[in-house]
Amino acid sequence: MDTLPEWIAVDWTPVRRRAWAMRGDTVLDMATQVGPVETTRPAEALLDLISGFLSDSAVDVMTCGTLGPVGASVPCAPLSDGAWSVDMGDARVRLRGVSGLRQKQPVDLMQGDETRVAGFLSLNPEWDGVICIPGEHSRWIHVSAGEIVSFQTFMTGVVAATFLERTVPDARATRVDGAAFVEAVADAIAKPERVMARVYSIHAEAVLDGLEPEIARARLLGGLIGSELAAARPFWLGQQLAVVGEGELAQLYVDALAAQGAPAALADEPRMTRAGLATAWRTLTS
Amino acid sequence: MDTLPEWIAVDWTPVRRRAWAMRGDTVLDMATQVGPVETTRPAEALLDLISGFLSDSAVDVMTCGTLGPVGASVPCAPLSDGAWSVDMGDARVRLRGVSGLRQKQPVDLMQGDETRVAGFLSLNPEWDGVICIPGEHSRWIHVSAGEIVSFQTFMTGVVAATFLERTVPDARATRVDGAAFVEAVADAIAKPERVMARVYSIHAEAVLDGLEPEIARARLLGGLIGSELAAARPFWLGQQLAVVGEGELAQLYVDALAAQGAPAALADEPRMTRAGLATAWRTLTS
Repeated sequence: MDTLPEWIAVDWTPVRRRAWAMRGDTVLDMATQVGPVETTRPAEALLDLISGFLSDSAVDVMTCGTLGPVGASVPCAPLSDGAWSVDMGDARVRLRGVSGLRQKQPVDLMQGDETRVAGFLSLNPEWDGVICIPGEHSRWIHVSAGEIVSFQTFMTGVVAATFLERTVPDARATRVDGAAFVEAVADAIAKPERVMARVYSIHAEAVLDGLEPEIARARLLGGLIGSELAAARPFWLGQQLAVVGEGELAQLYVDALAAQGAPAALADEPRMTRAGLATAWRTLTS
Repeated sequence: MDTLPEWIAVDWTPVRRRAWAMRGDTVLDMATQVGPVETTRPAEALLDLISGFLSDSAVDVMTCGTLGPVGASVPCAPLSDGAWSVDMGDARVRLRGVSGLRQKQPVDLMQGDETRVAGFLSLNPEWDGVICIPGEHSRWIHVSAGEIVSFQTFMTGVVAATFLERTVPDARATRVDGAAFVEAVADAIAKPERVMARVYSIHAEAVLDGLEPEIARARLLGGLIGSELAAARPFWLGQQLAVVGEGELAQLYVDALAAQGAPAALADEPRMTRAGLATAWRTLTS
């Protein structure tokens, strides 16, 4: 890095940590750690992640995710808690963070997606509608008048990973057959309760009839995403929609929604995360 | 072991292998291996499992499960394929096995449960109805006039294990609250598509409100088993029912069915497995 960062943006989850060295809204450099945190001391893991971005002078490090607490209850603005701060005992780092949000009924929580919503709203002021954020957990978030009104979290991604590992060898390298995907989504929306049986049937067809991996993967992801759409219908039916995500999974959610006559705008997840953290950082330093 | 076994019964799955040293229907001794097979040579793993039961003279080893092939298509008798045999190159072992069964539409397969059905029918001749076999996969099997007519496999147990690990610390040591379980089953049968969201809500309530582990575990298992019951309704509604299983999980299926007004007889799984293998062994040696 030739230029020193003005601040550092960090998104922290139990399975992946990302850091961006920032000057205003410009990304100077990036660092990623994948897999569980290897130490019980988060401060040590954080310093390890951002060490390449540090110099002798102090820098603001603005984080979101599971490093901090869960704060306010919805309905509320995504960044309504203000930023927390912790003295790390390292003069190079001024650690700050965005708190997560909770929902009382049905009980739910988010730690990180409130920042992505704030980022999306900073780039799309006055936007009302529903934001879907796919991933290991997928989250449907109803936004109105600058506030998060309600949300619901699904464990679809966790289940998809478990089943893909058992059913589709070399799943990450296998593309998804588009026609089989859309058909599986429609089947699952019609009969969402069959998802656990349908998944085994794909496995049986792979073992007995040599089902092509592209079809197996499409049916598996289509079945799981379709079941989620069946349960999340109140969130997407007749609403203005945005999918905040990245890569193939985000595109599959957009395709699945489009096939139900529900067009969704696709917004780049890392960009929304950084924009949300930048908003929190500017609020703090202004 | 004071008495030499007349034959050895083996049930083989990717996650657990069990062997019983048998004299007729009497169990002389038992051996179990849990976890994935550690060698790519199944013959070696099998010898390791049964080594304590072997002597200088040859003994019949009758297996079911994933050691052998998948054979006939339903509808057919559970043991309709006869036994396969393989020369292991070890004079002490005469290896025999029961083949699995397949279903053409919807595509499905079983490797082991056909033997449990044969065992159940050998002890309950003329029985017609539906046998539910819970486990890592749970299977609903329609039996009529001594034949397996149709069946359906659900991946409920795999999902339950994944979620329990993430949501309920020390899950194996935690009992299930009976009232919360029955309520969760009823909720899931009414709204089976919500299962992926309900599971995350349990996690959120555990994190935010200190939900008791007994309640969390009851809601998780009740939600997953209830979703399965919603999809398996054509199998259990108005049918004579038996649950072939063991321990807490089998009892939970019986309780869940009873709460829907569908009483099920509980049959001990290891006993049914041995009875099925004994039937196959006697057919072979008679």
